[in-house]
Amino acid sequence: MAEDCIFCKILNKAAPASFVYEDDHVVAFLSNRPVNEGHTLVVPKKHYVNIYDMPVDEAAYLFKVVKRVAHAVRDGLNAEGVRIVQNNGSAAGQVVFHFHMHVIPMKPHNAFGHDGAFRDSTKPRSPEELEKDAEKILRKI
Amino acid sequence: MAEDCIFCKILNKAAPASFVYEDDHVVAFLSNRPVNEGHTLVVPKKHYVNIYDMPVDEAAYLFKVVKRVAHAVRDGLNAEGVRIVQNNGSAAGQVVFHFHMHVIPMKPHNAFGHDGAFRDSTKPRSPEELEKDAEKILRKI
Repeated sequence: MAEDCIFCKILNKAAPASFVYEDDHVVAFLSNRPVNEGHTLVVPKKHYVNIYDMPVDEAAYLFKVVKRVAHAVRDGLNAEGVRIVQNNGSAAGQVVFHFHMHVIPMKPHNAFGHDGAFRDSTKPRSPEELEKDAEKILRKI
Repeated sequence: MAEDCIFCKILNKAAPASFVYEDDHVVAFLSNRPVNEGHTLVVPKKHYVNIYDMPVDEAAYLFKVVKRVAHAVRDGLNAEGVRIVQNNGSAAGQVVFHFHMHVIPMKPHNAFGHDGAFRDSTKPRSPEELEKDAEKILRKI
């Protein structure tokens, strides 16, 4: 566990989050600043900063969970599209320096061509709203 | 091989691309409409439309290649950040309906917060330019 890492706190249950998945190595919980409702983060329990310092087998295992979460986000939110994003470095938009993959349900107006760009601003979502979103995903996971 | 799939054509060498990686299951080649120079696509040889219809073990294996490509893109392009994106469905911005993961070298002006948004427009890049970009990545892969 890294000191002052919000994701370490969340996965040690020292900070709140709406969980949709947990096993020995990986957790998934909702972003509290979702691009869209149901925006989920898949996070290793060990504190790796980015993809570079994560052992390759652990990265591969985590991606299996990402696939499972992607199905559940699609089915639970009736999402027309699902975008998966993983940022390394602040130049890539990484803000929390504990490896995580975004699984984002997408609507047609979010899509901006082949490059994965989108322009939605983020809005905070209340704990109660997050629990409702998580419930939809939990039903399908 | 799916008929009229540009990625099937590329990986069967029936259409041109600048390759940076190939093994029995996965290839990586440069996007010809890169968000930034060195924007690489990691693609399974089998024609899967999206993450849903890809077997989980093949998805996990492909993500190992994504990690390897991410290191090479970072080192070959001196990228300050690297963003990984995978789109499922046109509502998510998917244009080629053969599963692929984008590995995008990022500059500070590309970053727009934690959500993975960015606003760069894409510009076509010539075959000669793409070969030069590929050469930088090949040196590090």
